[in-house]
Amino acid sequence: MTLTTATLDERVAADPARFRVLTGDRPTGPLHLGHYLGTLANRVRLQAAGVEVFIVIADYQVITDRDAAGDVRGNVRELLLDYLAAGIDPRTATIFTHSAVPALNQLLLPFLSLVSVAELQRNPTVKAETAATGGRALSGLLLTYPVHQAADILFCGANLVPVGRDQLPHVETTRLIARRFNERYGPVFTEPEALLSAVPLLLGTDGAKMSKSAGNAIALRAGEDETARLIRSAKTDADRHITYDPIARPGVANLLSTGAACLGRSPGSLAAEIGDGGAAALKRVVTDAVNDTLRPLRERRQRLAGADDHLREVLRAGNARAEEIAESTLRTVREAMGMSY
Amino acid sequence: MTLTTATLDERVAADPARFRVLTGDRPTGPLHLGHYLGTLANRVRLQAAGVEVFIVIADYQVITDRDAAGDVRGNVRELLLDYLAAGIDPRTATIFTHSAVPALNQLLLPFLSLVSVAELQRNPTVKAETAATGGRALSGLLLTYPVHQAADILFCGANLVPVGRDQLPHVETTRLIARRFNERYGPVFTEPEALLSAVPLLLGTDGAKMSKSAGNAIALRAGEDETARLIRSAKTDADRHITYDPIARPGVANLLSTGAACLGRSPGSLAAEIGDGGAAALKRVVTDAVNDTLRPLRERRQRLAGADDHLREVLRAGNARAEEIAESTLRTVREAMGMSY
Repeated sequence: MTLTTATLDERVAADPARFRVLTGDRPTGPLHLGHYLGTLANRVRLQAAGVEVFIVIADYQVITDRDAAGDVRGNVRELLLDYLAAGIDPRTATIFTHSAVPALNQLLLPFLSLVSVAELQRNPTVKAETAATGGRALSGLLLTYPVHQAADILFCGANLVPVGRDQLPHVETTRLIARRFNERYGPVFTEPEALLSAVPLLLGTDGAKMSKSAGNAIALRAGEDETARLIRSAKTDADRHITYDPIARPGVANLLSTGAACLGRSPGSLAAEIGDGGAAALKRVVTDAVNDTLRPLRERRQRLAGADDHLREVLRAGNARAEEIAESTLRTVREAMGMSY
Repeated sequence: MTLTTATLDERVAADPARFRVLTGDRPTGPLHLGHYLGTLANRVRLQAAGVEVFIVIADYQVITDRDAAGDVRGNVRELLLDYLAAGIDPRTATIFTHSAVPALNQLLLPFLSLVSVAELQRNPTVKAETAATGGRALSGLLLTYPVHQAADILFCGANLVPVGRDQLPHVETTRLIARRFNERYGPVFTEPEALLSAVPLLLGTDGAKMSKSAGNAIALRAGEDETARLIRSAKTDADRHITYDPIARPGVANLLSTGAACLGRSPGSLAAEIGDGGAAALKRVVTDAVNDTLRPLRERRQRLAGADDHLREVLRAGNARAEEIAESTLRTVREAMGMSY
């Protein structure tokens, strides 16, 4: 039911046309290295293998846990740039925003009838996200967003959903909704499988969770000097001999993980190579690894940044394609429920 | 904030173009006399005064508290026939189904962000409806339906919502959502006023709540003989002297209320007129009053029943008009939220 990247690659390679992937992001700020290594690179890999990829820019989900949407227009633009820069190809992938696909959003209504409030309240991720808002009342949108996510996945018939471990309960909710819909109204939906990312969690340069807003993340759009500065500021320790020990030396280990992920090798071997070079050498190696990895992406991003008409057209075409598919799914759903008049 | 029919009539008469009404029904079965006297006749009255009336056939709301939609297609057709038979004029009124207006349904998403789950759970009508389902788990759709109702009211800018007393909390939720949206994103919505029906609650012929499914209601589409039979079967008492006493003589009082509502007079004066005629005379009077009231409606209904093309066209045109208005509102909402790209 849950695949890891490793087990999947064989199956995808065997028959890529069998798979359709749904993935996405909230437009709350520019993507960073953690996003790239954790999910974005994988999307590009799937796309290159011939899998059809759908990417939702979840604009309504920005307000699940805050009172204002912020500069959502600017954030959508940055996200779009990050996608295209990373190598998402809008000729085969479909990039769309929730707010522009009414037929998808409508699926929320029949789907909400298929889950109980108690089931929604038991969702551990919703619980954790509520706790993280510091006593803020749980909004109706936060409680129901796993159901909206089910609509994302099921409207386009995605059968593969790349997720972090914390998102697994949402895929389970989607499977539950697909199963119950089929039981009540006939076989319409396929239960999707979760695709667990195999990349380790990278921490921010301050050792805390890497976050768009915490200032501890290397943004994809950052310059090479800015990247070097951020890595130089990372906490390490006084031991000049570099070893990979996540428990005793979290700062050093995190830099090693970051560099290793960029270089496609193990943190231990990278540590051995640096040996007695100390934190300065480590940071130089990691800075080069990160900048080398992101260089082609950043160059593409710079070229695209002025092409507003192109960006608008990519989003317009993605939204139109998503709406066309959503309308077709909605028609099937309405027929199955007897709601075609 | 809450108007009764009496105080409204003056204001409507003074400036009917100022008002837009949203009202509707779940398509769970044919409408009955209680619906006609309670709300349907009032809609026709508002329409005749020059108020623009929107009527939603709430097909998704059928599954808030049950597992299957039933014969929703047949029920929508019957509802449509009841509306047209009662005098709703599709040239000025807009009749539509939820399932055919995606842009309206999409409003559920931003609106869900404006209310907390705790607020939704405090809604007394949702509580009562949950209790009435006999231990059945509260569905996500039942918890959120007042928010969907807010979308019904606000998408078309309705400023007047005819409701029974049990629906007042929903109008409050709508006002809350309109207010919060305007505070966060700028002045887009008008807070609607509730229009409390002045007609007394009619009980079924068995003394229980009149209900489509309990077999105790006089359906608008019923024949005159069937109506007579149902009224003859109504519980009364052995006292031949007819008096209006809802506490001591609920069966007699309910028949008097029913007849009086049809005749546009008071139950007390009707009782005085019948005097010592006993239950038989009372039932004759009430049967005549009901059948006389419903006769023109039933004749129109019979004429329309074969006109399937006309019915389809009425619904198609209503849905198209609702979607056009909903799309315009949604555009405004997206602009206000910064979600136009």
